[in-house]
Amino acid sequence: MKFNQFGRLDPDFSEQVAELTQIHFLPNNWSEMAPADLLAGLFARCFPEVSNASEVADREDRVLVTRDMSLAQRLADRPEKLARGEFYAAALQLLGFIPADDFPDLDALTAMTKWGLPTIAADPLGGDDVVRAFYLLLTTRGKNGQNFLDLLTARGYFNGFLTASDAPHFVFFNGKSQAVFDTSKIVREVVYVESSLDTDHDGQRDLLQTTIFRPVETNAGLKVPVLYTANPYFRGTNDMAPSSYDVNQDLTPKVPNDTSYSDVAYHHAQPLVPDARAVTGTTAETSERPVDDGIYSLNDYFLARGFATVYAGGIGTRGSDGIRTTGGPEETASTIAIIEWLHGDRVAFTNRTDGVAIKAWWCTGNVAMTGKSYLGTLAVAAATTGVKGLKTVVSEAAISSWYDYYRENGLVIAPVDCQGEDTDVLALDTFSRRKDAADFARIKPQYDRMMADLKKGQDRASGNYNTFWDARNYRKNADQIKIDFISVHGLNDWNVKPRNVEQLWQKLRDLPINKKLFLHQGKHVYMNNIQSIDFTDMMNLWFCYELLGVANDAPAVLPNVTVQDNATPETWHRYADWSEPSIPKTQYFITGHDLQKQPPHQEEIVSFQDDGTPLFLAGDQDAHKWEALMMSRQSNVYEHTRQLFLTAPFAKDAYIDGTIVVTLQVAVNQAAGQISCMAIDYGTERRLKADPTVLQAKGQQLGYGWAVDDVKEFQLEKHPSEFHQIAKGHMNMQNRHTPWQNDALTPNQFVTLHFALQPTEHHILAGHQLGIMVYATDMGMTVRPNTAATYQLDLNASRVEVPYRR
Amino acid sequence: MKFNQFGRLDPDFSEQVAELTQIHFLPNNWSEMAPADLLAGLFARCFPEVSNASEVADREDRVLVTRDMSLAQRLADRPEKLARGEFYAAALQLLGFIPADDFPDLDALTAMTKWGLPTIAADPLGGDDVVRAFYLLLTTRGKNGQNFLDLLTARGYFNGFLTASDAPHFVFFNGKSQAVFDTSKIVREVVYVESSLDTDHDGQRDLLQTTIFRPVETNAGLKVPVLYTANPYFRGTNDMAPSSYDVNQDLTPKVPNDTSYSDVAYHHAQPLVPDARAVTGTTAETSERPVDDGIYSLNDYFLARGFATVYAGGIGTRGSDGIRTTGGPEETASTIAIIEWLHGDRVAFTNRTDGVAIKAWWCTGNVAMTGKSYLGTLAVAAATTGVKGLKTVVSEAAISSWYDYYRENGLVIAPVDCQGEDTDVLALDTFSRRKDAADFARIKPQYDRMMADLKKGQDRASGNYNTFWDARNYRKNADQIKIDFISVHGLNDWNVKPRNVEQLWQKLRDLPINKKLFLHQGKHVYMNNIQSIDFTDMMNLWFCYELLGVANDAPAVLPNVTVQDNATPETWHRYADWSEPSIPKTQYFITGHDLQKQPPHQEEIVSFQDDGTPLFLAGDQDAHKWEALMMSRQSNVYEHTRQLFLTAPFAKDAYIDGTIVVTLQVAVNQAAGQISCMAIDYGTERRLKADPTVLQAKGQQLGYGWAVDDVKEFQLEKHPSEFHQIAKGHMNMQNRHTPWQNDALTPNQFVTLHFALQPTEHHILAGHQLGIMVYATDMGMTVRPNTAATYQLDLNASRVEVPYRR
Repeated sequence: MKFNQFGRLDPDFSEQVAELTQIHFLPNNWSEMAPADLLAGLFARCFPEVSNASEVADREDRVLVTRDMSLAQRLADRPEKLARGEFYAAALQLLGFIPADDFPDLDALTAMTKWGLPTIAADPLGGDDVVRAFYLLLTTRGKNGQNFLDLLTARGYFNGFLTASDAPHFVFFNGKSQAVFDTSKIVREVVYVESSLDTDHDGQRDLLQTTIFRPVETNAGLKVPVLYTANPYFRGTNDMAPSSYDVNQDLTPKVPNDTSYSDVAYHHAQPLVPDARAVTGTTAETSERPVDDGIYSLNDYFLARGFATVYAGGIGTRGSDGIRTTGGPEETASTIAIIEWLHGDRVAFTNRTDGVAIKAWWCTGNVAMTGKSYLGTLAVAAATTGVKGLKTVVSEAAISSWYDYYRENGLVIAPVDCQGEDTDVLALDTFSRRKDAADFARIKPQYDRMMADLKKGQDRASGNYNTFWDARNYRKNADQIKIDFISVHGLNDWNVKPRNVEQLWQKLRDLPINKKLFLHQGKHVYMNNIQSIDFTDMMNLWFCYELLGVANDAPAVLPNVTVQDNATPETWHRYADWSEPSIPKTQYFITGHDLQKQPPHQEEIVSFQDDGTPLFLAGDQDAHKWEALMMSRQSNVYEHTRQLFLTAPFAKDAYIDGTIVVTLQVAVNQAAGQISCMAIDYGTERRLKADPTVLQAKGQQLGYGWAVDDVKEFQLEKHPSEFHQIAKGHMNMQNRHTPWQNDALTPNQFVTLHFALQPTEHHILAGHQLGIMVYATDMGMTVRPNTAATYQLDLNASRVEVPYRR
Repeated sequence: MKFNQFGRLDPDFSEQVAELTQIHFLPNNWSEMAPADLLAGLFARCFPEVSNASEVADREDRVLVTRDMSLAQRLADRPEKLARGEFYAAALQLLGFIPADDFPDLDALTAMTKWGLPTIAADPLGGDDVVRAFYLLLTTRGKNGQNFLDLLTARGYFNGFLTASDAPHFVFFNGKSQAVFDTSKIVREVVYVESSLDTDHDGQRDLLQTTIFRPVETNAGLKVPVLYTANPYFRGTNDMAPSSYDVNQDLTPKVPNDTSYSDVAYHHAQPLVPDARAVTGTTAETSERPVDDGIYSLNDYFLARGFATVYAGGIGTRGSDGIRTTGGPEETASTIAIIEWLHGDRVAFTNRTDGVAIKAWWCTGNVAMTGKSYLGTLAVAAATTGVKGLKTVVSEAAISSWYDYYRENGLVIAPVDCQGEDTDVLALDTFSRRKDAADFARIKPQYDRMMADLKKGQDRASGNYNTFWDARNYRKNADQIKIDFISVHGLNDWNVKPRNVEQLWQKLRDLPINKKLFLHQGKHVYMNNIQSIDFTDMMNLWFCYELLGVANDAPAVLPNVTVQDNATPETWHRYADWSEPSIPKTQYFITGHDLQKQPPHQEEIVSFQDDGTPLFLAGDQDAHKWEALMMSRQSNVYEHTRQLFLTAPFAKDAYIDGTIVVTLQVAVNQAAGQISCMAIDYGTERRLKADPTVLQAKGQQLGYGWAVDDVKEFQLEKHPSEFHQIAKGHMNMQNRHTPWQNDALTPNQFVTLHFALQPTEHHILAGHQLGIMVYATDMGMTVRPNTAATYQLDLNASRVEVPYRR
């Protein structure tokens, strides 16, 4: 167990007192109280689930302060001070730690040092230090990863805090909004935002169904900001399987051309749209209730803390008009239309027919976007428009250019476990409007046209970057990002690959905005409920700063770049930057099977066969098993389909920081060729699992009688493994210059390929070896040729550049 | 997709009208309405999430009735009747089915026949038939497995149904209680029931913390029944690993004895207990709020429908007094103490110290118990006491005798994946009182005594049935069961093995009570959210009958025995009985490797080695992989450790109904021996997975803005498998007569073992073969001897008896 806490503030004592008083933890007259009464009174506040003194005493009698004395017994003596060890023994029990399991011999201080939990140095603790200690305790994280005030909140601390006589208001503690709002009465409603699109060409502007969950306190005049998640999956999905592509086919030679970027650049033209609907009246009351719930526990956490949450599926989803375009400019416009309404710049109606307009009268106009994957992608898209009202984005595992999702260097490259998927397949998946049969029947011709357009535009036959993909490259418009920006990504995410976040980061670096980056060791997963890091607290600090104007200095408090270590569990590094272009790279040459820093002595040409497809297809077609065999040092059925080169064992630990680049001199005995290259960490080690383990199902309560979340952690695998994939990359040999230009490929003539693997941050332990594997077909990502081919690699002209963190 | 629906009532028309009127689906003046208005009005009730006519029309305009006409367009013509096909095309869409995916060509009637959904025969539908059709529709199950009225409820149909002016009351439809209660205001409270136990010997009766969730309408005078779940895990668990036993050891020879049952029979003596606490006052208001949530979605479903839910951990759990005894009589008394309070027969206090008593004034006194595993076990225990107030039990995957959980025929036999566990290990697991360090410190000596008592009583060294186990055999008291009883069990549950439910069923069969049995194809899992069967609806019918006195004839409506077919998905058989003692058994003899109905011609002695442990321990120690190798027809490293006999391929389908019994003539070359025997279904087939697949995460809403559950189904495996384990059994060769008597075992002398495998219900498809495998060590369940042994089997004197359903 280790608790990394980056979002906690250390205000001065007077501020601590003010905050404690404001949340009624400290009585106003505390400084006049007898020290013993103060101490007893503060402990008594730690049991909000009970009502009277005898019940508190009963609770305190269950907490040990020394091996043979309970907190109740200790307090019965009316002490003015408490030994530091006694205080923290009690504190750890209040935080959910179990002495017998977690801190033997009641040695709280040793445990807290080990786990990284903060303490007050004074010993014994008395007077002001008691107040300081309780302030610190309230912001200290418990065994379930939540801080103590959140634990108290879940047990009812703030129940009824905003009494009827008060004007409802936000309550901040340690710079973060608290769950004082009545979650049993959340207002749930639906409106229809009128976009400036007519993507289904029905002569009317596309209406966008928008689902709102807002604190009931807004009805009493409180204005609140919004966490908005654009979620194409919100109203359901369709079965993609019928439209997936067969990838069991040879790679097609492409006709050489001299296409330049300007030939494929997308230039946006505002579409002509029908006139807006007539507004027949206005109202402040909606008339439709949502049928779906929120989908992200982080949003629910903030809903209890006064942030409204808003979900919209966008064009082509059930309840909305329009058709989907899988990341196209229309989807961006559809996404920001909701923000424009929230900000007061666009009309919404209470329903699809009556023309009665309704404003987001309960909203401050300040909006943050959240979400993972496609949801986070649309947040990136929105940020690049500079739309008013959008104040910040927390974008997780997001695509920043769709070419980097479905393509790479002139090849069709599937996201992991998604062979045969493409933009049209995903469009079918998210086109939930299809579920309303009569609605679908009316726009079926437009749907068919969209599918045809996507098929044509994505140009699966060539794999090249073209205007279609350029229109889906949000990074082109990165300079329009005027807002503070947070990116979160898994370093083992082979669905949305890390290039998406890294290339965006390269653009954000020099923008005059605050930007933060979180890189965890997971796959395509959330990180908000990981025990070892206070992500939720950091987001609370961030949203309060960005949306509510709380002067908590969040941009300075949060690390610029937070990276989870892959070798040591529960360890999160804070860095100033990641993958800087200027980082020096170590160059490796190849001799025999060795990667070494000295240039090779002699020329050497090696070869491998690309004939694994029949064997793969005859088996259980598990690309993960295939990949494990490919990476294995041991001889196996696929060994002849690769070339593997290894460094000597590392003398000391090293950290790869950014992008490994390879230069390969390759020939193939046919007119088309695909090269895959993988970087591998070899060394027998128990490694982190890329799927976090559930430590406690529903172990986090996000409010009082409100939503719950599991507590998770990235744990070590039970058994040591021999290797781990660090990164990989792919290139079509005809796209050795650019992804839009096709070069000629003559059988058996060597060409130079120079390409980057996916970026990473990877800790190589001393004694481990870095491996570089060169092969052709990637069963899980590329097409799988049935025709065998022979590839040759000229080692003398090949090299690998690795950026190491200083 | 197939929908088995056993809990639907078909009342006569006047009753249908009365019920529809009562829930305001049908206007009181319906018979005076123009037929077109009636039809339109009934459809309009199907969109409770919107408020006005234009919004309803918009919704209706999204539903197709013919290929080119929407429901809105159809109703705009003011039809008096609707073609049957049109009505059901619309109905299926309202039920969540998607034409393009689920019923191509809008052919609703063909689909409904295939899926088993009921329809009205009239065509066209008009007049009273329209009313009948809507009544039927409301009770018809949708794609997520819930009936249409539940779907409407989730969308707000009953929101505000009980207005402030009404006296709150239950609303029944089709014999089932509806979710008219306000789940946003559930009352959550804690009381402390005073038991008549002092298991921690502190001189005070054990107080039992009891958590209550009750409808807020009880505050307005409504009395409600209770679903009570005795849940030792409710307040948390401890890590069991440190106290688990090492099973890598030889089987110990036992000293022969002539113990008879009377020597080990347990005779209950009421313990002496301290006087009750003084009652210092009374109150109607509790003062403590619970910190944990409910744990069973079925309970939550009923909480929205007016049934309070109550959870108690029992003695030795956090917040309660006492120590745990893993199924001992003290736990039974602890369990029923809660019912006694709910029924008005026992005192509870608002807290642990002040002596203020509180009654369950909001309760009718009628209680049902629910729960799975240990939770269901305690329901069985409670039922065998005849405690007043307990009206019925729905016990899932329950232990009926703890010997059948941790032991078998004189052997220590672990539940699957629980090697090394025993009663003391489980007692540590559930002794959550340990988490309160000061509380634990005070009773540590009693805890140590309990652990010593359990270790001694369970007598792991012998594995024999003794007084300790007899005290934990609830079936002994089965004749005390005076209440209607439902058992649910998985036929692939190797945690709580099916003998537990089967042996209880043998006792229940002749009791003058209503009893029902559900056998699914799962492991140790719930079945309330399985798409293909209306378990929740049946339970609604049952609880309304048992707890609220609704005259819905539930005992006659529900099948006696409901069994899921293992070969055909989504198929549930209804039988009059299961595993009747009188069922004729087919006898198989053994010749060579064949099981055949003719007696063998000649004597044959075969042997196998029991030497697999070193190999197993050298590998990854995965008992499931080991078991798959053992069952495999193919030659493999464990083949010499088994003898496998197979029938000829079955000429036609057969159903094993109950218990396979084997008679084996065996010798072993040492003074102790353990025999395992397995029945296996051989045949290449895609089989049902024993873990249900999530069809739709959170796809069931259990009320309006209330709890959710996943929709699940037992699906076929992706690839065909060669075999499936039907049942197995184990016996210590020294316990060949009884589990309490040790017989001498002479090395290499043959003895006759006669024992039952676990009971089952299994469909063997034509062309498959039944296999019987005989072996010694069961890596996942028995001790794993390091000393190799040779077993001999005299085939001539061995046979297998199999009960087939007629």
